[in-house]
Amino acid sequence: MRYIAVFDHFLRRDHRDQITRTAEKLGISVTFCTTVDDLPEGERARYEALYGNPAPEILHLFPNLKWVCVSSAGVDRYVDDAIYPNPGVVLSNSTGSYGVTISEHILMMALMLLRQMPVFQAAAREHVWHGPLPTRSIYGSSITMLGTGDIGTAFARRAKALGAACVTGVRRSVKAADPSFDRIITFEGLNEVLPGTDILVSALPHTAETVGVISRERMALLPEGAILINVGRGTAVDQEALMDNLRSGHLAGAALDVMVPEPLPADHPMWSTPNLLLTPHISGNMSLGHTCDVDVDLFCEDLERFAHGLPLLRAVDRKRGY
Amino acid sequence: MRYIAVFDHFLRRDHRDQITRTAEKLGISVTFCTTVDDLPEGERARYEALYGNPAPEILHLFPNLKWVCVSSAGVDRYVDDAIYPNPGVVLSNSTGSYGVTISEHILMMALMLLRQMPVFQAAAREHVWHGPLPTRSIYGSSITMLGTGDIGTAFARRAKALGAACVTGVRRSVKAADPSFDRIITFEGLNEVLPGTDILVSALPHTAETVGVISRERMALLPEGAILINVGRGTAVDQEALMDNLRSGHLAGAALDVMVPEPLPADHPMWSTPNLLLTPHISGNMSLGHTCDVDVDLFCEDLERFAHGLPLLRAVDRKRGY
Repeated sequence: MRYIAVFDHFLRRDHRDQITRTAEKLGISVTFCTTVDDLPEGERARYEALYGNPAPEILHLFPNLKWVCVSSAGVDRYVDDAIYPNPGVVLSNSTGSYGVTISEHILMMALMLLRQMPVFQAAAREHVWHGPLPTRSIYGSSITMLGTGDIGTAFARRAKALGAACVTGVRRSVKAADPSFDRIITFEGLNEVLPGTDILVSALPHTAETVGVISRERMALLPEGAILINVGRGTAVDQEALMDNLRSGHLAGAALDVMVPEPLPADHPMWSTPNLLLTPHISGNMSLGHTCDVDVDLFCEDLERFAHGLPLLRAVDRKRGY
Repeated sequence: MRYIAVFDHFLRRDHRDQITRTAEKLGISVTFCTTVDDLPEGERARYEALYGNPAPEILHLFPNLKWVCVSSAGVDRYVDDAIYPNPGVVLSNSTGSYGVTISEHILMMALMLLRQMPVFQAAAREHVWHGPLPTRSIYGSSITMLGTGDIGTAFARRAKALGAACVTGVRRSVKAADPSFDRIITFEGLNEVLPGTDILVSALPHTAETVGVISRERMALLPEGAILINVGRGTAVDQEALMDNLRSGHLAGAALDVMVPEPLPADHPMWSTPNLLLTPHISGNMSLGHTCDVDVDLFCEDLERFAHGLPLLRAVDRKRGY
């Protein structure tokens, strides 16, 4: 018998049944737990794989670990080789679960900013019937999407269905992408498209290369009135420059679901920066049924490959960071 | 020479040029004005048609009027035959201009309610990093759309592109509708679909038949946690019942862009009803370039037909009310 442990933070009964059934068929026994303390110390050596949200600092307690599958798409807390009991442990993520929910979040935020909802909401809190304000639309807009994976693609599809004039995908190297993108460019070409960008969206992971990619210089290249949305990792954005550009009005608005640091302290100036919508890293909230369903499906798919010694479909390159 | 007057509240220079060019080609002279006072009393008899937002109470000042084209989709202020100088005046509207902007408004409001944005925004105003909350999605949801014209169809297309499981269109009589609707039913069948409806949307005009159509009885038929969005006319909704259902939590949220009365007085209890998002009748805001462009295109199209004595494409049945 082989053993795996699932660090459960979102599973429904049917999800647990699905994992157990898949594992049993493969001769694998599953233990569900909430924290490592639920697993007796003397038994930890039996576990070959962990799924869910095991804390990075407990991985070294599993001497025979071969695979860690995190239920998130971002893996920045898991890329340090030193947290693993041996360098051979494979890390995989759950890219593919988050496209639906995060693309809906991006759409909502873009529409709230384009339609000036925060102004109407502030008036409504004062019981004031506000007059009309200039409104813009996803329809006909030019969108630049940093990151063309599951999330970027799901958003590109929705933006085109809403009539966006042009969706440009930006990635490390040009390769075939979803036809919803009007074009795919690399970061080398980014500065050329920024002046024609109405909506700049980042779904970039945290890697050595993405830190500060939305820099002060690049914000200056965006046209007056552009908006910025970040659902990837906070390190991509120069937050000081963002606050300056929102205060000056060069940018019409921004929505950050990720930022530095998280949680944002109560006295941080971003909370009171004009036209800045902050959400507490919830765009990929695991409470969405569909997200959970897909997350479990993807894990079960890779569990079968793991049992048969095949390469995992969502293995992460820890050096690259995604 | 024939004469028309345009009551201008949104036109850009290029729109005025387009109208003038179209009219000149047809041997028609155009006067642009803001109010009726801009048109000398002695010259009013020459105008055969008015376009834009002429106040209903000034129409009788034009004795030879044949056509009024309002730049809105709703015509409830123009259906009383008594406001016209003679019963033969044809009324037309600008249905077709608003699908893009109003469907984006519906999408935004649905997402804000499903994703509990008001709670996250209230926390952010207090500089509080709120924990995750249960989130729902357009993806997989069942939507019932009252009204299957331009606005209902534009929204149905977007909802299906986002993966809505089922979009039911509800109209007066069953006839062919856009394939984005999974099914079309009449109001007689509405009560049967309400228990399976996650999101109920109304884009209904104000007519004798639509008053109170979203009644207390029908709200009770919606499942616990359903949401309601109204972008048509406020009279469709029983507002007392809506407040009760939001206070009890039977409905998870509602968004009204139209209500009774407008403007809503500062002391009206709807302003402080929980989970009720109120906007000041701005979902079809004329500031959106695309809306204005289409509005002018549609008028010019019917102006050619008017000049040639053909039936207008967007003529309204004043008795029916749309």
